[in-house]
Amino acid sequence: MKELVSLYKDKIDNRLRIFLDKRISHSSNISESAKEIMRSIKEFNLRGGKRIRPILVVLGYKAVGGKNEKAVIDAALAVELMESFLLVHDDIIDQDEMRRGYLTIHKVYENKAKRIYKNIDYKRYGENISIIIGDILSALGSEAILNANFPIKRKIKAIEKFNKVIINTCFGQVLDINYEIRDNIKEKDIKRIQQLKTAVYTIEGPLHIGAILGGANNKKLRALSSYALPLGQAFQIQDDILGLFGEQKKIGKPIGSDIKEGKKTLLIIKALEKADKKESLFIKKCLGNKKITENDIEKIREIVKSTGSLKYSEDLAKKLIEKAKSSLINLNLRKKGKKQLLNIADYIVNREK
Amino acid sequence: MKELVSLYKDKIDNRLRIFLDKRISHSSNISESAKEIMRSIKEFNLRGGKRIRPILVVLGYKAVGGKNEKAVIDAALAVELMESFLLVHDDIIDQDEMRRGYLTIHKVYENKAKRIYKNIDYKRYGENISIIIGDILSALGSEAILNANFPIKRKIKAIEKFNKVIINTCFGQVLDINYEIRDNIKEKDIKRIQQLKTAVYTIEGPLHIGAILGGANNKKLRALSSYALPLGQAFQIQDDILGLFGEQKKIGKPIGSDIKEGKKTLLIIKALEKADKKESLFIKKCLGNKKITENDIEKIREIVKSTGSLKYSEDLAKKLIEKAKSSLINLNLRKKGKKQLLNIADYIVNREK
Repeated sequence: MKELVSLYKDKIDNRLRIFLDKRISHSSNISESAKEIMRSIKEFNLRGGKRIRPILVVLGYKAVGGKNEKAVIDAALAVELMESFLLVHDDIIDQDEMRRGYLTIHKVYENKAKRIYKNIDYKRYGENISIIIGDILSALGSEAILNANFPIKRKIKAIEKFNKVIINTCFGQVLDINYEIRDNIKEKDIKRIQQLKTAVYTIEGPLHIGAILGGANNKKLRALSSYALPLGQAFQIQDDILGLFGEQKKIGKPIGSDIKEGKKTLLIIKALEKADKKESLFIKKCLGNKKITENDIEKIREIVKSTGSLKYSEDLAKKLIEKAKSSLINLNLRKKGKKQLLNIADYIVNREK
Repeated sequence: MKELVSLYKDKIDNRLRIFLDKRISHSSNISESAKEIMRSIKEFNLRGGKRIRPILVVLGYKAVGGKNEKAVIDAALAVELMESFLLVHDDIIDQDEMRRGYLTIHKVYENKAKRIYKNIDYKRYGENISIIIGDILSALGSEAILNANFPIKRKIKAIEKFNKVIINTCFGQVLDINYEIRDNIKEKDIKRIQQLKTAVYTIEGPLHIGAILGGANNKKLRALSSYALPLGQAFQIQDDILGLFGEQKKIGKPIGSDIKEGKKTLLIIKALEKADKKESLFIKKCLGNKKITENDIEKIREIVKSTGSLKYSEDLAKKLIEKAKSSLINLNLRKKGKKQLLNIADYIVNREK
C-alpha cells in the first residue's frame, strides 16, 4: 500500500505543479502581486502531505470501474486545493503559526510586510492577504474539476458534491469554534464534529467525487458511505492521538497544538470524564493556554493514559476501522478496487501523519 | 428603467428568499449552529441593495435571445451570493462596522458572543465566524448556477466564468490592499484596480454569465466586454463620488469610509496631483485615520472640488458611459435587449447607490 500511495502521490504532485504553474503564468499578465500570490499558493500546496484525499478520489473512481487515471488525477487536485483553502482560513481562525513544517500563510505575509512596509498592522496585513488566498484556492478547486477530461454530466455532479463538502465542513468548523468555548461538551458532540469536519471532508467527500466521476449512481454512493464514515471518524481519532503523542517533525506542527487552541478532542473529553477533580481542573486550566510548557503537556499525556482515555480512543478507532472494512465486504465493487480500499483503511490509521 | 429594475429586483429577492429558506431547512438537520449561520446569511442577503449584478445577468441573457426568465433569475442569484461572499470577507479586511445600513456580519457575531460567552476574544470570534460564513456563501453561489434549469453545457461554462470572476476580483483586492499602504500610486494603477475589482466583477462578469446561459459564443462575449468594461469603470468612479459626497442613509455605510480606510480612489489621487503642498499633506494625514472628524472630511471635499478632481472624475465617468453606449450600437444583439443595456448604463451612473 505504501508503494501505491507514494506512486499516486508523485503523480498528483506532478499534475498539481503543472496546474499551478499554468496559473502563475496567467496571473503574471494581471499584476506582479497576482503572480506573487499564485507563487505562494504553489509553495503552500507543494510543501508536502500524504495526499490522502486526492488518493481517495482516485481509489473511489477505480473502485467503481473508472479507467482514465490521468483524468481522475486532474480532478483529484480539487480536493487537495480544497484542503489548502480550508487550512489557510483555519490557520487564521486558530491563530496557528506552523503548518506542514513551515510558517502558516498568514505568518509568511506578516513577515513579508515587516520587511517591506513601515508602520502598518503587520498581523492584520498577513491575515487579510490570507483570507483572499483562501478564497482564490476555493475557486481553483472547482476549476480543477471543470478542467478534467470527463463527460460534463459527471463533472456537474462532482462539483455539486464539492460544494456540499465545503458547506458541511464549514458547519463542522462553526461547531468546533463554539465547542472550544463551551464547557459542557459531551462525547456525542465530539462525534458530530468528527462526522462533519473529518468523515465527510476527508474520506466520504473525496471517495464520492471519485465514484461520481466513475459513473456511480446514488445507491452506490450511499453504500460507499457505510465504509467512509466510520473510517473518517477513526482517522480523526488517530489525528488527535498523533497531535498529542506524535513527533513534531512528522505532523508538521507543534505537538500539543490542540491543547493550546483549547480543542476538545475525544481524548480530552474522555479524560475529563474519568479524571479526579484535581486532574480535571489541571486539564481545564491548560486548555487554550498558548504558553503551556512541555512539562504540562507531558502531565496531560499521563492523565490521558492513566484515565484510560488513550486506550478508549485507540480501541474505538480500531472498532471503527473494522466496521468500515466489514461494510466494504458486501459492496458491489471491482475486486481490485475493494482490496485497495481495504488496505488504505489500515494505512490511514497506522500512518504517522 | 427604474420600474424595470424594481420589477426584477422583486423577482430576484423572491427567489433568493426561497433559495435560502430551503438551505435553512436543510441546515436545521445538521445542527442548531448551522441553522443560525444560514439564518444570518439570509438576513444579510435580504438587507437590500439594488441587485444591479443579478439584473445584469438577466439583461445579458435576454440581450442574446434567452427566453426562460425564471431560470435565468435562479442562476442570477449566484452573483448576488458572490457579492455577499466577497463583502463579508472585505468587511473583515477593511475592519468596517456598517454594511447595507446595518452592522457588518463580523460585528453582529462579535456582539452575539458578548451576550453569550464570558472571557473570550469577542472580536476574534466575530471575525472567525465571518470567515466561515463567507466560505459558505462562495459555495452557495456556485450551487445557484447548478440548480438553475439550463442545459448542463451552458451551466459548466457559466461556472467557469463564475470562478474566473472570483479569482480576478481577489487579485484586484490584493492590489487594493497593497496600494492603500504604498505612497506612489498613479492614476493608471487605480484604473487597474477599477478594472479587476469593479468592471469585471460588477458588470462584465454578470453580463457574461447571463449571455453564456443564453448561448452566446466567445465572439459575442468579447463584443459585450467592449460595453461592460468602460461601464464598470464609470460605475466605480460614481461609487467613489457617492462615498464622499453622498448620503449615509442611501449608501448604507458612513460617508468618508474610503478616507478612513485609506483607500486611494481616483478622486483622491487626482486631488493629490493638483493640490498645493499644504492641501496634499492634509489629505495624506487624513487617509487611513479612523477617527477623522466630519469637519476634516468636509475640508477634503473642498480640496477635491477646488483642485478640479471632482469635475475630472465626473467628466471621465460620462466619457466612459458614452464609450460603453457607442460600443453597444454596433453589437449584434436583440433590439429590445440592446435598448435595456443602453438604459441601464444611464441608470447605473445616475443611481444614488
